[in-house]
Amino acid sequence: MVTDRLTAVVTVADDGGSSGRLRRELGVLPPGDLRMALAALCGDDEWGSTWSEVVQHRFRSEGDLHGHAVGNLLIVALWELLGDPVAGLDWVGRLLGAHGRVLPMASVPLDIVAEVELDGVTSTVRGQVACALTPGRVQAISLVPEDPPARPEAVAAVLEADWVVFGPGSWFTSVLPHLKVPELARALHATRAKRLVTLNLAPQPGETDDFSPQQHLEVLRQHAPGLSIDVVLADTGVVDDPDALEKAAAAFGARLVMADVAAADGSARHDPRRLASVLDEIFLQKR
Amino acid sequence: MVTDRLTAVVTVADDGGSSGRLRRELGVLPPGDLRMALAALCGDDEWGSTWSEVVQHRFRSEGDLHGHAVGNLLIVALWELLGDPVAGLDWVGRLLGAHGRVLPMASVPLDIVAEVELDGVTSTVRGQVACALTPGRVQAISLVPEDPPARPEAVAAVLEADWVVFGPGSWFTSVLPHLKVPELARALHATRAKRLVTLNLAPQPGETDDFSPQQHLEVLRQHAPGLSIDVVLADTGVVDDPDALEKAAAAFGARLVMADVAAADGSARHDPRRLASVLDEIFLQKR
Repeated sequence: MVTDRLTAVVTVADDGGSSGRLRRELGVLPPGDLRMALAALCGDDEWGSTWSEVVQHRFRSEGDLHGHAVGNLLIVALWELLGDPVAGLDWVGRLLGAHGRVLPMASVPLDIVAEVELDGVTSTVRGQVACALTPGRVQAISLVPEDPPARPEAVAAVLEADWVVFGPGSWFTSVLPHLKVPELARALHATRAKRLVTLNLAPQPGETDDFSPQQHLEVLRQHAPGLSIDVVLADTGVVDDPDALEKAAAAFGARLVMADVAAADGSARHDPRRLASVLDEIFLQKR
Repeated sequence: MVTDRLTAVVTVADDGGSSGRLRRELGVLPPGDLRMALAALCGDDEWGSTWSEVVQHRFRSEGDLHGHAVGNLLIVALWELLGDPVAGLDWVGRLLGAHGRVLPMASVPLDIVAEVELDGVTSTVRGQVACALTPGRVQAISLVPEDPPARPEAVAAVLEADWVVFGPGSWFTSVLPHLKVPELARALHATRAKRLVTLNLAPQPGETDDFSPQQHLEVLRQHAPGLSIDVVLADTGVVDDPDALEKAAAAFGARLVMADVAAADGSARHDPRRLASVLDEIFLQKR
């Protein structure tokens, strides 16, 4: 199954690196995660791959531009020019020949506030960078502002979808935030789409240290009480207790699918083709 | 006559503003004048005009990005990525749907050194910014380095052209420098193309204060001894002494064409359509 009817709904809470600087200097949404998603969807001809490389290119210098990703600057320029975040991203999508659409989940920049536990002591940290740097395990996250305006296009995409896919990705800072934007969370509960969770291949230091696959699901349930899930997809190699994971999936009403979706090089990354092909089989009810 | 077979060969000696900063920070050719030429050639559909606006957009802030033109950053990124200034500009040209090609005249960044005369005293200033800021009249310019490598594509374009057009533009910093790049100057002398000089509509403060049209030609002759010109085109409104101008043109072997090519708003700018239409008539030998 090949589809262009794919919408990536992306967290806008990054406050580090090039995105964080742009956010502070120009008061815009942090563009970096949006850029990454657009580049991942780029066309595979010379045009798409060249512009994708341009968009992903980072300046290296001893000066002011050091570290800025060109695509971040391009996205921000389109935002300033068009006054509409979604229109700006759609123009970059057209430039890249992107197979799908990339949308910010909210219309305003967000901060993630995390409760982090270390050695029995719980503290609160604000911001994605602080969250990643603070040692310990994140217990829960919330957003500032608490009730940010969701992007209507993102809400519509969720309501109109056939399938909604959560993850893989940084669990607390990329996957769960969507469920803390009230309008978007309502859509994620209300949609007639089937829901699938792709579990990560490894815990993330400073975020999900030592989390088992089933703990990932438990945390998801805490952040989205009442959400039902249809399928939990896990890589065969990371499941050490299939019964426990099956039980955790069943708590959502979900069936567990185990498949080889990890990259062959042993890194904690999914193999995009394997993952796409398994998702394909699930969507077509062949698996 | 509509042609896409148009090549703009652009000076690369700017050392001010966004271009100057990029040149110093990243060691690249100053991209600004190249960007301007590309934007001027952009396609007139929604695609071309939107990307042209993006390319021309400047960041405004209290921070590091202030004043940078987005197109400068894009051009430089393509240069870093492709390692070839001409290929990078061609990609931006494709993005803009540009009707023609834009080439740097040299492969390395240049400095313009100007002899400036004020109240009978001649001094030497280096750099385009210093040249524009120093009061007085420029007498002559030279380049540092003295014998920069010309872009082979620019040399080829001159040799293959039907017409070579000098000006309008900043006389000492945009029109004459081509004649000081030895390889390019040889091509400008050797080409079988006809040569046309478009005179400026007004002197430029700090550069050509009080210059009459014929003085512009005299300065050109001093910088390109032996160059023959076929046509000198002047706006009717700026010629106060047609006989003197005709004589100055004749010294190049050129005939003088006077036409209404100034903008209707009284500014010292050419009306692009009028100028194009008169050039068209001259190229087709209807005038």
